[in-house]
Amino acid sequence: GVDYLTDERKTAQFDIEAMKVAWAGSRETLEVSDRMAKLVANDPVFEKFSRPMLGRKELFKNTLRKAAYAWKLIVSLGLSEEEAKWLRLYIDEPAFTDLHWGMFIPAIEGQGTEEQKQKWLPLAQKMQIIGCYAQTELGHGSNVQGLETTATFDPQTDEFVLHSPTLTSSKWWPGGLGKVSTHAIVYARLIVGGQFHGVHGFIVQLRSLEDHSPVDGITVGDIGLKFGNGAYNTMDNGVLRFDHVRIPRNQMLMRVSQVTKEGEIMQSDVPRQLIYGTMVYVRQTIVADASKALSRAVCIATRYSAVRRQFGSRNGGPETQVIDYKTQQNRLFPLLASAYAFRFVGEWLKWLYMDVKQRLAANDFSTLPEAHACTAGLKSLTTTATADGIEECRKLCGGHGYLVSSGLPELFAVYIPACTYEGDNVVLLLQVARFLVKTVSELGHKKPVGTTAYMGRAAGLLQTNCAVQTAEEWLNPGAIVEAFEARAARMAVGIAQRLAKFENPEQGFAELAADLVEASVAHCQLIVVSKFIEKLQQQDIRGKGVRESLEVLCYVYALFTLHKHQGDFLATGCLSPKQASLANDQLRTLYSKVRPNAVALVDSFSYTDHYLGSILGRYDGNVYPKLYEAAWEDPLNDSDVADGFHQYVQPMLKQKLLLSSAKL
Amino acid sequence: GVDYLTDERKTAQFDIEAMKVAWAGSRETLEVSDRMAKLVANDPVFEKFSRPMLGRKELFKNTLRKAAYAWKLIVSLGLSEEEAKWLRLYIDEPAFTDLHWGMFIPAIEGQGTEEQKQKWLPLAQKMQIIGCYAQTELGHGSNVQGLETTATFDPQTDEFVLHSPTLTSSKWWPGGLGKVSTHAIVYARLIVGGQFHGVHGFIVQLRSLEDHSPVDGITVGDIGLKFGNGAYNTMDNGVLRFDHVRIPRNQMLMRVSQVTKEGEIMQSDVPRQLIYGTMVYVRQTIVADASKALSRAVCIATRYSAVRRQFGSRNGGPETQVIDYKTQQNRLFPLLASAYAFRFVGEWLKWLYMDVKQRLAANDFSTLPEAHACTAGLKSLTTTATADGIEECRKLCGGHGYLVSSGLPELFAVYIPACTYEGDNVVLLLQVARFLVKTVSELGHKKPVGTTAYMGRAAGLLQTNCAVQTAEEWLNPGAIVEAFEARAARMAVGIAQRLAKFENPEQGFAELAADLVEASVAHCQLIVVSKFIEKLQQQDIRGKGVRESLEVLCYVYALFTLHKHQGDFLATGCLSPKQASLANDQLRTLYSKVRPNAVALVDSFSYTDHYLGSILGRYDGNVYPKLYEAAWEDPLNDSDVADGFHQYVQPMLKQKLLLSSAKL
Ligand SMILES: Cc1cc2nc3c(=O)[nH]c(=O)nc-3n(C[C@H](O)[C@H](O)[C@H](O)COP(=O)(O)OP(=O)(O)OC[C@H]3O[C@@H](n4cnc5c(N)ncnc54)[C@H](O)[C@@H]3O)c2cc1C
Ligand SMILES: Cc1cc2nc3c(=O)[nH]c(=O)nc-3n(C[C@H](O)[C@H](O)[C@H](O)COP(=O)(O)OP(=O)(O)OC[C@H]3O[C@@H](n4cnc5c(N)ncnc54)[C@H](O)[C@@H]3O)c2cc1C
Repeated sequence: GVDYLTDERKTAQFDIEAMKVAWAGSRETLEVSDRMAKLVANDPVFEKFSRPMLGRKELFKNTLRKAAYAWKLIVSLGLSEEEAKWLRLYIDEPAFTDLHWGMFIPAIEGQGTEEQKQKWLPLAQKMQIIGCYAQTELGHGSNVQGLETTATFDPQTDEFVLHSPTLTSSKWWPGGLGKVSTHAIVYARLIVGGQFHGVHGFIVQLRSLEDHSPVDGITVGDIGLKFGNGAYNTMDNGVLRFDHVRIPRNQMLMRVSQVTKEGEIMQSDVPRQLIYGTMVYVRQTIVADASKALSRAVCIATRYSAVRRQFGSRNGGPETQVIDYKTQQNRLFPLLASAYAFRFVGEWLKWLYMDVKQRLAANDFSTLPEAHACTAGLKSLTTTATADGIEECRKLCGGHGYLVSSGLPELFAVYIPACTYEGDNVVLLLQVARFLVKTVSELGHKKPVGTTAYMGRAAGLLQTNCAVQTAEEWLNPGAIVEAFEARAARMAVGIAQRLAKFENPEQGFAELAADLVEASVAHCQLIVVSKFIEKLQQQDIRGKGVRESLEVLCYVYALFTLHKHQGDFLATGCLSPKQASLANDQLRTLYSKVRPNAVALVDSFSYTDHYLGSILGRYDGNVYPKLYEAAWEDPLNDSDVADGFHQYVQPMLKQKLLLSSAKL
Repeated sequence: GVDYLTDERKTAQFDIEAMKVAWAGSRETLEVSDRMAKLVANDPVFEKFSRPMLGRKELFKNTLRKAAYAWKLIVSLGLSEEEAKWLRLYIDEPAFTDLHWGMFIPAIEGQGTEEQKQKWLPLAQKMQIIGCYAQTELGHGSNVQGLETTATFDPQTDEFVLHSPTLTSSKWWPGGLGKVSTHAIVYARLIVGGQFHGVHGFIVQLRSLEDHSPVDGITVGDIGLKFGNGAYNTMDNGVLRFDHVRIPRNQMLMRVSQVTKEGEIMQSDVPRQLIYGTMVYVRQTIVADASKALSRAVCIATRYSAVRRQFGSRNGGPETQVIDYKTQQNRLFPLLASAYAFRFVGEWLKWLYMDVKQRLAANDFSTLPEAHACTAGLKSLTTTATADGIEECRKLCGGHGYLVSSGLPELFAVYIPACTYEGDNVVLLLQVARFLVKTVSELGHKKPVGTTAYMGRAAGLLQTNCAVQTAEEWLNPGAIVEAFEARAARMAVGIAQRLAKFENPEQGFAELAADLVEASVAHCQLIVVSKFIEKLQQQDIRGKGVRESLEVLCYVYALFTLHKHQGDFLATGCLSPKQASLANDQLRTLYSKVRPNAVALVDSFSYTDHYLGSILGRYDGNVYPKLYEAAWEDPLNDSDVADGFHQYVQPMLKQKLLLSSAKL
C-alpha cells in the first residue's frame, strides 16, 4: 500500500534500527518484544477493535477467552517468562492475570515462608489456583493501617477467623477479585488474645475449585462500571465480605511475623523493611508502564500531526502540516522527550531495584529509605505526566482525537488509575517531602546518598550563580544539572527553614503541605533530568546519529521543564529572568532539530498497528479512508432509518406527539 | 434520612438562599431553574443511572425517547422558551435538539433573509423539520475556508448543485446529522460561472419527511463511538456525502451575499461582521456551560472530601476528613473559586453580547474586534480549565472517583470536546494574540477599548512597582488588578518588541507562537480576575455574608493564578520573589476561610442529586451504602459464576486447556 509518511521517514538523521535497540534496552529485548508483538498482532483472537462496542458481560467473557487462549499459547509454545510477559503486554487488555502474576505471586514470594512458597507457588504458577491482592476497602485505601477487616486467631481450632465487621470494611477494588480469583491475599487486622497486632496478609480461598461457587461465609462480586468504553471494564475489580470465615493458621503470610499455635506473636530475623523492597519493585514497573503508555499516545499524535494539514495553503498547494506549527511542537515534542526520559529513568530504576535487592540480601539497609523515596516520587511524577500527556495528545489530534477509533480515549481511561493505585500521587509526594526534610535536617552529621547526594553540596548550591549568557550555553549538561540541583536544594532547604519556625513540626508539615509537594516535584524532576544525562554518557548507545538525537530530546525535556517551572528557578534566585528567557529561546531552536526526526523517533518504539489500536496513528498514515470505513461499522448504521424513529421522531415531525397513544 | 453533612452545613457563615440567588443571577432565574430541575428529577423517564450500561443502539433509542417526551412536556405544559432551555439542560443528555435549537435555528436567524426566516423558522420551531449545522469535514475543521464541498450554481435550472468531490470533503462531526436531522445548514464553496466565491451556508434537505429515508444522492450515517460510556454517544454525530444534489437557489442563506437568477453575486448592505455577533453569542453560552460543568465536578469532590476520612485518627477517634488536608484544599478550593469566577465572567459576557447586538443594530462596529477576541479567549481559558478541573476533581476522590457511579468519568468525557469545537483552544488563543499585538502596535494613535483599555496605560504599567509588603496587603483588589495588568501589558509589549525584530512579521508570528499564546493567557486571566472584582462591587449582591464569602473566593482565584504563573510575574519584574511568596502565604490563610463554607458554597449551586448523577456527591453524604448497593446492579453480578467460566477458566484450573476441544 501507500505510505503517506515516507517523506517524513526520509528526513530522519539517525539509524532507526539502532534507536530501536536504544529504546528497547538491548538487541535481544527488541527481538523478543517484536516477536511477541507480531504473534499477538497476527492472531485474530486478539482483535480489539470491536471491544468498546461490547456490553459488559460480552466484554468480560471475551477477556476470559483471550486469557485462556494466551495461556494455551504460553504453555504449548513453551514461552519463557520474559516472552510471556511481553505477550501479555501486547494483548493490551487489563485482566485478572495482571494481578495473579503481578501481585498475588510476588506477595507470596516476598512475604511467605519457605514452606508457604513451596505449597502455593507451584499451584499459582500452573494456574491451578488464581489469586488477587485484596488490600483496599470501601473505607480505606491510602491508610492501610486503618483497614477494618479482622483476622482473629482461634487457638482452639488453630485457625484465623476472617470477618468484615462494618460496611466500610468490605474489600473494594482488588482486580480479579470480582468474578475470577479462587484465592486472595487478604490484608486484615490481626487479633490475638483480644489484642490488635497490626495489619497482615492472609491467603484465603474464595471460591470452590470445583464449581467456582463462593466459599461459605463469603460474599463476592464485581463493583461495577469504570471509566471508559472498554478500558478497565475487562477487569473484574471486586467487592468481598467475610462472615466469620475460617482459614488454617498456616495461611497467614509469616515471613516477617509469626503466630504460634499457642497464640504467641514472634518476629523473625527477617527485617520488616523487606516489604519496601517489594514496593520498589512494583513501582519501578509502574514507571516502565508510564513510558509505554505515553510513548503510544505520542506516537499516535506525532504521526497524525504529520498527516494532518490545516491552513497555510499557497496558490492552491497543500496546506501546512500541523506538526509544523510551533504551538503544536511546543505541546508535542516535550511529551515525546518525556516518553524517552521516562523510559531511561525506568531502566535506571530497574537497576536500582536489583541493587537494593542485593544489599538487602547482604543485610545492608542503608540505601533503602532513599530508594523508597525515589521510586515513590518517580511513580508520582511519571504517572501524573503520562495521564496529562495522553489527554494532551488527544487534544493535539483536534476533533478526530475524540473518536474511540483514535485509540486515545481508551488509552486515557485505562491509564489514569495509575495516578491513584499503588499510592495516591499526592500522598506519595508528601512521603518524598518527609524524606527530603529529614535529609536536610541530618545534613550536619549524615552524608546523603544516591539521588540525594547533591544535598551534600547544599551549602554551595545555595550560593552558586548560573553562568549561562547565551542561548547556546544552555546546551551544556553541567549547567542544566546545576540549575536543577540548585533549585531543588534551595526549595528543600527553604521549606525546612520555614518548618523549623513551627513549634509543632507535624502542624508545620500539615500547614505547608502544598509547598512541600512542590519541593518534592523539583527533586524528582532533577532525578529524571540527571538520569537522562547519565544515560547519554553510557557506552551502550550505538548507531549513527542516535546519541545526537537523544541529546536533543534530553535538552528539550530539561529546558521545557525549566520553562514550565521558571517561577521556581526565579523565585529561588537560581536563574535571572534573562537566563530563563535564553533557555526558552534555545528550546525553540531545539524543536527545529526534533522536527525532521519526529516520525522516526516514534517509529523507534517499534509498535505494531495492533498495539497502537489507532486509526490516526497508523504506520502508513492512511488515516481518512480508514476513518471513513470504520464509521460504517457502528451499530447505528445497521439501518438507514434509526430504531426508534417511528415511535419517537415521526410523531414529532408529524405534530402528532400529543395525540400519540405511544407510551413514551 | 440521615444527613452526614449536617455539621458541615452548620459552619457556613453566609445566607445560603441569598448565595443561590447570587449564583443564579436573580431570584426569578433561581425559581425557574429549580422548578425545571425538580420536574426532571422526579420523572422516571429522565432516569440516567443505567445509561452507561446500554449498548449504542439502545442508548440512542432511549435518547430519542427522552427528547420526544421532553417536547411533549414543553408543548403540553406550555413551557416558555426559558423554561424549555432549563428543562433540556437538566435532562443532561447530549441530543440532536442541542444543535437544532442551538445552531440550526440561530444560523437561519443570523444569516437568513426575512423571507427565509419566515419560511423556515416556524417549521423548525414546531419541529416539523429537524436541523443541524454541517460545517466540519473529514479534512477541515479549524480552517473553514479550506472546506471542499462545492455548491455550484446552475442558472439553467436556478439551482445549486451540492457535491462532495473528494473523500476528505465528506461532512464529519455535525451533531444530529447522523440519524435524526431532516435538514442541515451545509457550508460549501460557492461556485458561480466557474469562479469560487467563498464559503457560504445552504439549507439542504437530507431525509424524506415521510419515511426518513435519505434524499437521492445523499449518503448519511453516524461516525461511530466517541469517548466515554454513555457520554456523547447519545448524539448522532454524522458523516454526509453529496452526489450532485440539487437545491433551489433560494436555499442559500442570503442575508449577507446573494446570488441572483442571472448568476450575479451581490453583497447586501448588511456588514459581514454580523457573523461575529453569532460567534460571540455561541461562545458566551460555552463559557456559561463551563461554569456549569466545573461547578458540578467541584460539588461532587467537595462533598465527598468532607465525607471521606483517611489517616490521623487519635485514640481510635474518627480520622481526618480529607478536605482538611492543605494539599486537598490547594487542589480543590481554587477550582471552587474558578467555578464562581467563570460563572460571573459568563454573566458579564452575556451582557457584552447584548451590548454588541445593540451596537450592531446601530451600525456601530467599533467594539466588535475586542468583543470577538475577548470571547474567543475566554472560551479557550474556561473550557481548558474546566476540562482539567473535572479530571482533578476525579483524582481528588481517590479510587472511588474512577467508578462511573461517581459521575465524574461521564462528566469529563462529555465535556472535553468543548476544548475543540467552536474553535480549537490553541487556534483561538493565537487569534487573541494577533489582536493583542495589533492593539499594541496601534497604541500611538488608537485608544484601546473594553477589556484592553488597560493597554492605554501600558507606559505606566511597564514602570509600576507593586507596593505589597505583607501578606495582608494582598487582600486588596487594586493591588491584584494592577499586578495582573502589569504582567499582561509587559508580556504583550515584550512579545510585540520581539516580533518587530523579524523582517517578515508572519514568520515572526509563526516562530514565537508558543510565547504569543502565553501572552494571550495572561490577558484572559486578567479579564476573569477583573470581572470577578467588578461583580463584587455591584449592588445586587445581597444577604448575610454573601459578599464576604465571594470576596474570599475572588482572592483565592487571583492569588492561586498568581502563584501558578509566578514565573510570568517574576520574569517581567512585576513582583519580587518576596511579594510572590507573600501571595502564597495569604493563599493558605484564605483556604482556612473557605473551609467552613466549602459545602455550603457548593450547595449554593442548587443542583439536584439527579443532575449531579453522582453517588459520591449526594446531598446527604450517604456514600458508602449507596456505592455498595449500586455495585450489585452490574450485569456481571447477575450470576455468582461468570458467563465464560466453564468454557475458559475451568479448563485452565483443571489443567485441561491443551486437551480441551473447546475452540477458544
Ligand atoms: C483501577 C483500580 C485498580 C485497583 N486495584 C487494586 C487492587 O488490585 N488491590 C487493592 O487492594 N486495591 C486496588 N485499588 C485501590 C487503590 O489502591 C486505592 O484506590 C488507592 O490506594 C487510593 O486510596 P483511596 O482510594 O482510599 O484514596 P483516598 O486516600 O481516599 O484519597 C482521596 C483524596 O484524599 C487525599 N488524601 C488521602 N490521604 C491524604 C493525606 N494523608 N494527606 C493529604 N491528602 C490525602 C488524596 O490525595 C486524594 O486526593 C485499585 C484502584 C483502582 C482505581
Ligand atoms: C463532539 C464534537 C461535536 C462537534 N459538532 C460539530 C457540529 O455540530 N458541526 C460542525 O460543523 N462541526 C462539529 N464539530 C467539529 C469541530 O468544530 C472541529 O473538530 C473543530 O473545529 C476543530 O477542528 P479540527 O478537528 O479540524 O482540528 P484541527 O484543526 O485539525 O486541529 C488539530 C491540531 O492542529 C492544531 N492547529 C490547527 N490549525 C492550527 C494553526 N493555524 N496554528 C496552530 N495550530 C493549529 C490544533 O491546535 C490542533 O492541535 C464537532 C466536534 C466534536 C469533537
